[in-house]
Order: sequence, then C-alpha cells, then structure tokens
Amino acid sequence: MKDLRTSSSFLIKQRPFIQLYVLKFLEDGRPYGIQMLEQLRERFKKEGYQPNHAEIYRALHDLVDSGVLKASKKKLSADSYQEITTYFIRDVQKAIHLKKQLINELNRSKAMLMKALEDIED
Amino acid sequence: MKDLRTSSSFLIKQRPFIQLYVLKFLEDGRPYGIQMLEQLRERFKKEGYQPNHAEIYRALHDLVDSGVLKASKKKLSADSYQEITTYFIRDVQKAIHLKKQLINELNRSKAMLMKALEDIED
Repeated sequence: MKDLRTSSSFLIKQRPFIQLYVLKFLEDGRPYGIQMLEQLRERFKKEGYQPNHAEIYRALHDLVDSGVLKASKKKLSADSYQEITTYFIRDVQKAIHLKKQLINELNRSKAMLMKALEDIED
Repeated sequence: MKDLRTSSSFLIKQRPFIQLYVLKFLEDGRPYGIQMLEQLRERFKKEGYQPNHAEIYRALHDLVDSGVLKASKKKLSADSYQEITTYFIRDVQKAIHLKKQLINELNRSKAMLMKALEDIED
C-alpha cells in the first residue's frame, strides 16, 4: 500500500492540496472526479489556478492506493454500457488522520507566506 | 539572457520565493550567499523549512543569468588566495519589476491558502 507524503519542507504541494479538497468533496456528497475538477477550477479561477484532469486523477489514485478511498464503477443508466467511477471513503480513521495532517500543512504554508510578506514589505 | 519564470498556476515555487528574499537581503546590505542561507534557515526554523546551499546558489545564479544581479569575487583578505563572491543589483529597473511580480505571486498564493482553509474548516 502506497504511503502518502503529506509533508514537504517548502510549501504544501499540489497533490496533497487537491487531496484535501477531495476529502471535503466526499464529505459534501460529491463523489465524482469530474465534479471535483470543475469545482476546483471554478473556486480558483480568480487566482489563475486551473488544475487539469490528470492532476485530479493522480490525487484520487494515490488516495485509493494508500487505502483511504475506494473506487467503484457504475453504469450511467440501467441500459447503458458507459460507466462512471464513484469514490468513497474506505478507511474513516485514515481519512481523519490525513485530513488533520493536510490542514497542518496548509497552516504551516500560510504561516510561511505571511512571514515572507511581512519581511518583504517592511 | 535567461528569462525568470515568476508565475506558476499553483503556489509560488521555491526558487522565486528565495529570489525575493535575495533582493531583500541585497537592499539590506547582505551580499553574501552564505549569509542569505543562514538567515533563511533561521527565519523558517519554526516552520521546518531549511533550504540547502544548492537552492540558494541556483536562485542567485538565475538572477545573474537574467541580468538582474552581478556577481563579483573578492579576496578574503589582502594576502589571501581565498575568494568570496559578492552579489550586487546590476539592473535596478529589472530588480524593481521582478520584486513586484514576486510580491504578487506571494499574495496570490496566500489568497489560495486562505480560501482553502476557509473551505476546509467550515
């Protein structure tokens, strides 16, 4: 099972940043990758951050590989051959633990940027 | 002459982050790479961000390559064969322009983290 690297010594990386949103989206009952992508792109339009498909799916993949999530395919409709992947929390304890770590990473990153802005602007 | 990439669609990257501090250190009359490294490591000790030698020198190098800074070697003492590299602003206009861009990048990154923290914690 793959270990998720949640900490880096510089700012939080893109993948864990997306993973934190994935956990949030699942809590809110939004289990589809494509929905997650659209929400993120919409949310960060102003800041010019527009993650692509591959980035969302790599983030989801890692969460599945590490045992936090489960992916399951279902048909788009009863008589359809097309399938869509739905994601669920597989291990609630792991998800809670990961979320805490990622929030710490976000706060640590914010603290670094605040310090830098303070240093630079005085 | 090398172009400095100051914008990325995700958070500010480590190299431009360091370069912003380099400009600040030069303004403050601290022209030595090793001093810059020590200051940065000290400043971000609490957040666990400890940049290494190579990262500082790559940041300085890029600034020299892009014509913002000039590097000059001087002897440690009159009778010494050892030399130390000192950095100066070569092009003030470029330096001012770059600093503005980098501060924008910092602010944009901060805005993203604040949004994320707000989204996640409610």
